[in-house]
Amino acid sequence: MTKIHKEKVILGLDPGTNITGYGIICVTGSKVKLVQFGVIQLGKTGEHAIKLKKIFDKVIHLIEEFHPDEMALEAPFFGKNVQSMLKLGRAQGVAMSAALSREIPIVEYAPKKVKQSVTGNGNASKEQVARMLMQVFTIKELPKLLDATDALAVALCHHFQKGQVKSKAKSWEGFLKENPGRIKNS
Amino acid sequence: MTKIHKEKVILGLDPGTNITGYGIICVTGSKVKLVQFGVIQLGKTGEHAIKLKKIFDKVIHLIEEFHPDEMALEAPFFGKNVQSMLKLGRAQGVAMSAALSREIPIVEYAPKKVKQSVTGNGNASKEQVARMLMQVFTIKELPKLLDATDALAVALCHHFQKGQVKSKAKSWEGFLKENPGRIKNS
Repeated sequence: MTKIHKEKVILGLDPGTNITGYGIICVTGSKVKLVQFGVIQLGKTGEHAIKLKKIFDKVIHLIEEFHPDEMALEAPFFGKNVQSMLKLGRAQGVAMSAALSREIPIVEYAPKKVKQSVTGNGNASKEQVARMLMQVFTIKELPKLLDATDALAVALCHHFQKGQVKSKAKSWEGFLKENPGRIKNS
Repeated sequence: MTKIHKEKVILGLDPGTNITGYGIICVTGSKVKLVQFGVIQLGKTGEHAIKLKKIFDKVIHLIEEFHPDEMALEAPFFGKNVQSMLKLGRAQGVAMSAALSREIPIVEYAPKKVKQSVTGNGNASKEQVARMLMQVFTIKELPKLLDATDALAVALCHHFQKGQVKSKAKSWEGFLKENPGRIKNS
């Protein structure tokens, strides 16, 4: 008897105010396939709102193209200073909005958790993470911007946590049904 | 000869992680009319992403109901600590995304600027701001949550700055046309 596995597409995102990395993987049973990975380059200059608009549009575009079932977000909770954290929060908020607007569940992972999950070492360097992903997905060339592999890493980390995810609500409707007291109408 | 003034609707927002205030005004020539104001109450508990989803949905709802031409955002650049700033940044990012997704230009104002503009005193209290707005818009009762009047204040502040706004691009397309080097395709 053949067991039929449903395909699951995971969009990994590493939002940043200068560069936002993205990585998409497709999981079928225990098989994991790389779909696409890359970066949204926002540049060091330019109006902040325009950068946010670019993140929003690109994430919407990725969602429409690849129909991810879940979004995994690399989300540091500490930063250099309040201003950089405000900017990072905005970039994260915009990326999350794109998923929220399409009813895609979001799961967040701290950078240490992602590194631990992918390389077995929570203090691994970006290069070590990238080299591990090159092996897993047989990527031949190291990308110039490791934000792309960082994003791919968070998608893979999410896949590795799938046991935990199963217990979570798969959609906002599901979440609200399971947690009727958690949201109030205004 | 009668000069015909086009109506302009301004949506003022004061995003926060527990309460997000909103205020909508309609400007016709030199006349300013209150359309609606209130708060999105997010509660102190509950999953963070659910709160963000609620802000996003409500702002989209306000946009679809009142068709604002511009969004004015109260945006503090300083905060107690990096974690609260990250959360505030996310709330701002989500509110901004709702406008970005509908091509509505966003203008940000620091809290001090809003207070200065509305009351003439950059250090005015929330109550002083609220009482001034009650006069301007003949509001009979002080709202329980002053986040609503804060949001209304940023909308009014934006109206007072209209001379400056005229020089700005009215839409993202306009902005991009006027600033061709400001955005790169990824």
